[in-house]
Amino acid sequence: MITTFEDKPRDKCAVMGVYNHPRAANFVYLGLYSLQHRGQESSGIVTNDNGTFYKHIDMGLVADVFSETSDMERLIGNIAIGHNRYSTTGMVKKINAQPLVVSSKYGPMAISHNGNFVNSQVLHNKLEDEGAIFQTTTDTEIVLHLIARSKKEKMIDKVIDSMDRIQGAFSLAIMTRKKLIGVRDPRGFRPLCIGEKDGAYILASESCALDILDAEYIREVEPGEVVIFDKNGISSYRLTEKIKNSSCIFEYIYFSRPDSRIFGEKVDKARRKLGKMLALENPVDADRIISVPDSSNTAALGYAQETGIRFEIGLIRNHYIGRTFIHPVQTMRDFNVRIKFNPVKGVLKNKRIVVVEDSIARGTTLRYLVRMLRNAGAKEIHVRVSSPPILYPCYYGMDFPTKEELIASQMSIEEIREFLQADTLHYLSLEGLLNSVPRENCGYCTACFSGEYPIVPDHKVIKHQLENGIVTD
Amino acid sequence: MITTFEDKPRDKCAVMGVYNHPRAANFVYLGLYSLQHRGQESSGIVTNDNGTFYKHIDMGLVADVFSETSDMERLIGNIAIGHNRYSTTGMVKKINAQPLVVSSKYGPMAISHNGNFVNSQVLHNKLEDEGAIFQTTTDTEIVLHLIARSKKEKMIDKVIDSMDRIQGAFSLAIMTRKKLIGVRDPRGFRPLCIGEKDGAYILASESCALDILDAEYIREVEPGEVVIFDKNGISSYRLTEKIKNSSCIFEYIYFSRPDSRIFGEKVDKARRKLGKMLALENPVDADRIISVPDSSNTAALGYAQETGIRFEIGLIRNHYIGRTFIHPVQTMRDFNVRIKFNPVKGVLKNKRIVVVEDSIARGTTLRYLVRMLRNAGAKEIHVRVSSPPILYPCYYGMDFPTKEELIASQMSIEEIREFLQADTLHYLSLEGLLNSVPRENCGYCTACFSGEYPIVPDHKVIKHQLENGIVTD
Amino acid sequence: MITTFEDKPRDKCAVMGVYNHPRAANFVYLGLYSLQHRGQESSGIVTNDNGTFYKHIDMGLVADVFSETSDMERLIGNIAIGHNRYSTTGMVKKINAQPLVVSSKYGPMAISHNGNFVNSQVLHNKLEDEGAIFQTTTDTEIVLHLIARSKKEKMIDKVIDSMDRIQGAFSLAIMTRKKLIGVRDPRGFRPLCIGEKDGAYILASESCALDILDAEYIREVEPGEVVIFDKNGISSYRLTEKIKNSSCIFEYIYFSRPDSRIFGEKVDKARRKLGKMLALENPVDADRIISVPDSSNTAALGYAQETGIRFEIGLIRNHYIGRTFIHPVQTMRDFNVRIKFNPVKGVLKNKRIVVVEDSIARGTTLRYLVRMLRNAGAKEIHVRVSSPPILYPCYYGMDFPTKEELIASQMSIEEIREFLQADTLHYLSLEGLLNSVPRENCGYCTACFSGEYPIVPDHKVIKHQLENGIVTD
Amino acid sequence: MITTFEDKPRDKCAVMGVYNHPRAANFVYLGLYSLQHRGQESSGIVTNDNGTFYKHIDMGLVADVFSETSDMERLIGNIAIGHNRYSTTGMVKKINAQPLVVSSKYGPMAISHNGNFVNSQVLHNKLEDEGAIFQTTTDTEIVLHLIARSKKEKMIDKVIDSMDRIQGAFSLAIMTRKKLIGVRDPRGFRPLCIGEKDGAYILASESCALDILDAEYIREVEPGEVVIFDKNGISSYRLTEKIKNSSCIFEYIYFSRPDSRIFGEKVDKARRKLGKMLALENPVDADRIISVPDSSNTAALGYAQETGIRFEIGLIRNHYIGRTFIHPVQTMRDFNVRIKFNPVKGVLKNKRIVVVEDSIARGTTLRYLVRMLRNAGAKEIHVRVSSPPILYPCYYGMDFPTKEELIASQMSIEEIREFLQADTLHYLSLEGLLNSVPRENCGYCTACFSGEYPIVPDHKVIKHQLENGIVTD
Repeated sequence: MITTFEDKPRDKCAVMGVYNHPRAANFVYLGLYSLQHRGQESSGIVTNDNGTFYKHIDMGLVADVFSETSDMERLIGNIAIGHNRYSTTGMVKKINAQPLVVSSKYGPMAISHNGNFVNSQVLHNKLEDEGAIFQTTTDTEIVLHLIARSKKEKMIDKVIDSMDRIQGAFSLAIMTRKKLIGVRDPRGFRPLCIGEKDGAYILASESCALDILDAEYIREVEPGEVVIFDKNGISSYRLTEKIKNSSCIFEYIYFSRPDSRIFGEKVDKARRKLGKMLALENPVDADRIISVPDSSNTAALGYAQETGIRFEIGLIRNHYIGRTFIHPVQTMRDFNVRIKFNPVKGVLKNKRIVVVEDSIARGTTLRYLVRMLRNAGAKEIHVRVSSPPILYPCYYGMDFPTKEELIASQMSIEEIREFLQADTLHYLSLEGLLNSVPRENCGYCTACFSGEYPIVPDHKVIKHQLENGIVTD
Repeated sequence: MITTFEDKPRDKCAVMGVYNHPRAANFVYLGLYSLQHRGQESSGIVTNDNGTFYKHIDMGLVADVFSETSDMERLIGNIAIGHNRYSTTGMVKKINAQPLVVSSKYGPMAISHNGNFVNSQVLHNKLEDEGAIFQTTTDTEIVLHLIARSKKEKMIDKVIDSMDRIQGAFSLAIMTRKKLIGVRDPRGFRPLCIGEKDGAYILASESCALDILDAEYIREVEPGEVVIFDKNGISSYRLTEKIKNSSCIFEYIYFSRPDSRIFGEKVDKARRKLGKMLALENPVDADRIISVPDSSNTAALGYAQETGIRFEIGLIRNHYIGRTFIHPVQTMRDFNVRIKFNPVKGVLKNKRIVVVEDSIARGTTLRYLVRMLRNAGAKEIHVRVSSPPILYPCYYGMDFPTKEELIASQMSIEEIREFLQADTLHYLSLEGLLNSVPRENCGYCTACFSGEYPIVPDHKVIKHQLENGIVTD
Repeated sequence: MITTFEDKPRDKCAVMGVYNHPRAANFVYLGLYSLQHRGQESSGIVTNDNGTFYKHIDMGLVADVFSETSDMERLIGNIAIGHNRYSTTGMVKKINAQPLVVSSKYGPMAISHNGNFVNSQVLHNKLEDEGAIFQTTTDTEIVLHLIARSKKEKMIDKVIDSMDRIQGAFSLAIMTRKKLIGVRDPRGFRPLCIGEKDGAYILASESCALDILDAEYIREVEPGEVVIFDKNGISSYRLTEKIKNSSCIFEYIYFSRPDSRIFGEKVDKARRKLGKMLALENPVDADRIISVPDSSNTAALGYAQETGIRFEIGLIRNHYIGRTFIHPVQTMRDFNVRIKFNPVKGVLKNKRIVVVEDSIARGTTLRYLVRMLRNAGAKEIHVRVSSPPILYPCYYGMDFPTKEELIASQMSIEEIREFLQADTLHYLSLEGLLNSVPRENCGYCTACFSGEYPIVPDHKVIKHQLENGIVTD
Repeated sequence: MITTFEDKPRDKCAVMGVYNHPRAANFVYLGLYSLQHRGQESSGIVTNDNGTFYKHIDMGLVADVFSETSDMERLIGNIAIGHNRYSTTGMVKKINAQPLVVSSKYGPMAISHNGNFVNSQVLHNKLEDEGAIFQTTTDTEIVLHLIARSKKEKMIDKVIDSMDRIQGAFSLAIMTRKKLIGVRDPRGFRPLCIGEKDGAYILASESCALDILDAEYIREVEPGEVVIFDKNGISSYRLTEKIKNSSCIFEYIYFSRPDSRIFGEKVDKARRKLGKMLALENPVDADRIISVPDSSNTAALGYAQETGIRFEIGLIRNHYIGRTFIHPVQTMRDFNVRIKFNPVKGVLKNKRIVVVEDSIARGTTLRYLVRMLRNAGAKEIHVRVSSPPILYPCYYGMDFPTKEELIASQMSIEEIREFLQADTLHYLSLEGLLNSVPRENCGYCTACFSGEYPIVPDHKVIKHQLENGIVTD
């Protein structure tokens, strides 16, 4: 038996782009490396050397895909885009790895995409009706078909024309013969920011990719904005009039790296506020506060700071784990948790423990963790979750378990507590969540908590991946 | 330094298709294995299980690409097509490996192609103008675009409509949701035959693929014919009125396997006639006849039979050689030949030797061979070539050296003899060649010898591979 | 350029053994996985099925070496030993991967070793003089030669006889046809403990390997003890009279996992005391305490607890990094640190920061870290090291930089502070170190700090690896 | 199901050595390449650069093992030895790949071995009794133990002393710190020859390895001779007084390459004589003579020459086959033969065919071949075997099927004919065989035909591979 580990929502992909650097690929490489947490299935870079595109894409982590110096040396040119892709069980396909590159009337074009279209099946069918043929099952190929078929004359108009037909979440980096183009959907679901270093422009999903390059953070690509980097510098266009944006609040809770700045705020700061707010809403009389490392660390520190209870490292995470693992001992029920975490008995023994977790999807991992803590001697276990119960699926690029698998959509909080075998269980309220993040210039999508979908998808059932009857390996 | 070995024209690819066998992939696999001589760069199979297509394609020999039992077990379905691709130096690209599979309005479609279009650039540009995007640099993708865009209603009409727009050489196996389709261009440049076993129909480039399956040889797909295998059995359609066909005479000289039957004749028989005719035109007073193994064996036997001179094995060929080889001894000038052939001194010593070779492209290999034979003690060396001097490039699917590299287009025969350091050198005449092959129902393309091109390509300079500005690995 | 990352002393290997479990290999596998931090170069398991030994060893992490279910299924038998090996630059050799297996008069024998002999060259030469031939350059092979050549009759006497000839550090798991044997050198340099689960006995370098199996911790193998597991259960023998032991104090400082229990104490507890003692000895007026994650986390928490200054996560560690990494941006001086750590600006900006680090070897990494923190806005940076200055090389199994590379043996503390560009720098005193660890039943080797070597090596210059004139790959 | 193909006895290994060439490894590489037919399981080279040995050994063909230029560039030094190893089913082990390299009192030593000891188990046990430990299951390791333990002072005396203890077949290349040593057992079972080029000396199993280097053939290493190449040039020593030699006659029949010269004769010449003698002993009235390619080609030509019947190529051999092959069509009984050979129908149809085969072991392949020829239209099939019936196992280095599997030891010739479904079947007589090979200075081992073993093995049952209770992968 092979075991996989994901029990949390997963974001879909990281996007990078660089304009006007003699070794653009190197910048993209480092950026992708720092964005590895957004996708570990495949990685790719496409460069542009005076109109000739060079491509290297493969399955695996950034460091593995570009493990040879020669891989990088081939990627010449001063424009480049890159992509990390995440993996869903059983759908790992090299053919869907990005960036996607095609030739067209306008020469070669390449694209990296983070997000999800809610009308992709409609667009796909319409394009096929018009005679298009598809080689992948990604939303991304749709964008290239739309651009290639647009009747507009100028590239910027083709892009705007195409984007106007797409509904959903998309942060894109598009590379044409002479330009690098960044696009963010009108509601700004996913982050995308602009940096600058030594006269080169950088597009990146999160600002941590700028930090690793020691590049200057300029600003976010605004919701509904198209930015074009070319020989005239940077120009900005709008897809539509400004509408209320709906940035994914889960980026603050779990997805983004704490050292990134997104939607105008440092993630670390927002996450600590979540912990403090959680403490205000749900205090507890306990001896120690521990986090489920590493994603809940900051919230746990916030909780500790607010309550004055001592923060300790009560769980050690094994970082040598791969994404899959042979399960040699079939009778060991909590195997998944056991190979990922080990309790620090000295911290836990005879103590009343608060465990801070950022979110609960299925709850199975947390259940085993609670048992592990109990076996290690914890006297009481109080679970505190720094986000509200996840009740609804996401159609904008997060890969959740299905509604049936989301524990909070199937059980009451008391039932979940019982399932987890925790002494107490409390979630942060939606109000508390919204009060912890900056509100001035930003609206949020909270659909997974509230069911209020900013864009209604055009089919009842949305699949994350188009089906086209082709099974590749 | 890495050395590659090809000094002969190379054919472009092998095609297989099977309809109505519960393990169609297995038949395709064995057929491709027997057609390995037509392409060693990549191999692939696509199967069709009630409309769902399964694909396994990779770089390498058939036995390597399908080296795991699980590779084959995944390929379920009772229709399948397959392909072997040949390799030209420096253009080995996985993205161009076939069969090519796409989804379209009509569901998934897959295609295997042997040949070369002479108007591919025109078609490619036209399709891009209409908004098509291309992901490969193959002719093959063009076919799929044409079919997907055809305004005709029925699949057969779409295929005919599309083929009518293509000029050049093509033997195709196309798989749709419910059909297997075989197509051969109106001039019948490349072979394609039909077999049958246990109620299953088989399409194959050469009949040796039927033999390995113990299948019955039915007939060739005729030039300009479209055959459709579906639940109604086999149906036949025509692309155009019958026109004079121009089958590639080089298939008899070198490409096809001697145990195959193509263009209505056994290759072995035709090849022996070439040897006899060569002997009649160019007799010689000598002690032994040897061949350059293995492709010239049959012609050498024919030559021996006609002249009564004893045939011997004077050169041993090393079959363990890969396609490339490290060249560790830089100072060894005839290294390429040395690792491929070893002379049998006992056969050669103090003998007057006739060396039969099927064809000469660059002449460099043969030059080293002559020297090797001389060093091994041969007293006289008489080179006899069982085809005329190659003077012109091929636009119909053979991968020749360029005109500048074709020795016969640069030197007189006496100069070639001098270059080879042979005592005498004679080629078979074009007339002798044509008199050795069946003429009743078949015309031949002899363009590489005569310069008479059956179809004039629409550009002065024809590239074998479309350029699209994308360099993949 | 390829970059490697180690700037800290590295321990040499992890040892596992299991007796009397139907799937002994599975237990060893999980144990090795939890001991991955002790060696990432190679991993191996040898099992014993009624006297037939099965072996699987390869370069790489545990999860990669045993990535196929079939790898594990082949490893049948109810006794097994395993090993993780660490890597020193440029000496990665598969031939040295362990366990080492040989056949001998007494049937097959296998051995796993953690430690270093100080008289290995002498023993090696003596054995060669007696006609022995060596196939590896490891200490480990010496043990097997000694046992095979011992004149004693019983296996236990052969083992004791052999061990008596060895000087230095060794924790061994030896498997013979019918027994599992654990040995720890008389001074007890390296840890080795005994566990039990479901009637099976387990030997492991650290107790975290028992935890992952949910096995019961029994006790340590005592310094100078030989434990034999066979059909008679567990028996204990002594190598020598008890002498003062010299356990490696660095195991508490850095090597062992915080959730392990070694030398009679929980590592986590000892490490927190180091932090508290460091605070008592070297308090500072500051705003925030951060650690260099992950190895310094516990000491930093101890420091925070003692001082009352707030602990924060000021550095994010990227866990996706492999052991090597292409360095695409040659001009980026602090590249090594940049791809491993990212500062959390919100935590650092305008703050007076205490950075707790467990130890300093070369100091280069820490220098870049200090600069990184400064650039992120830290107002003051106070480095506190939870161990004394490392001044001397280790001859007992730690892989240190050479004396010339050890910054503390080349510079005064003020010079180091200057080199690091820190505002202040303080180390824990040797006295403080010794006062932080349990002293009742345990003596420690502090040679790397004090130069007091418990056993004097018999050559002035000690190499960690025997040289035998053979360079393998 | 995976299919392997060997139905013939297989020789055990090829040996190469080079002394005094600045790029000795390159010479060894090319020599091994030309000796690939003697072993395809693994290949290795060890070089000696002023006493430091460099080693590269791996599973696979020469061209695959040394596929990187860097593999060769690492192998510096002006002395080198190499080895190709053959594979028997299920015993493919990297640990047994050669050359074997060890360190000893006399510095590093390496050895390549072709042959088989008949007293290896006795020697192995005796050495273990003396305290030796073994890491492989090869005869070869025994040699190194013997040399290392010899009490003699000079290396030549150690070698002679050791060889005197070994009984059986051995052609060895041994490399010490300063010497290259060639040894051939007193009966001269296996070939070993000496060549020279540009002042460098070469040892090789067959002379074809000299030809590929364009080196001069000097002479054979004589049976019972030890030749030493060192700074004093070449010196010769004897193991024993000259005794009647027993060279393996199967080398002429099947093993050696036809362009090699062994035991004082060209293989090609001997093999043609076998064909002629076979024709004289067993003439037949037939239309065509064909061979089972490639090993029987020369004998078939001899048969044709003697009888005047026309030689034709009636079977095409597929050279793309690997050593194993997925068997996707379980119901195809003659699958093994079908993927290896294809009949040329035009040659066979309605003809009376003589099939010349060099030897028959199991007979299963030939049986399917006869059926294949029959199905292709052959009117009569007359099998002629250019060696006598194989009745007995070989203890001197050939890997035969067991006695039970040897068809001729289980059936009468008439029964074999019936089994093969041939019209007639005749073998060459033992007398005819001996009359076809040079007799002046050479005696032969004919044990596999006659049962007369030159050296009686000391156990009733001889295994080709020592068992030591260790199963590696």
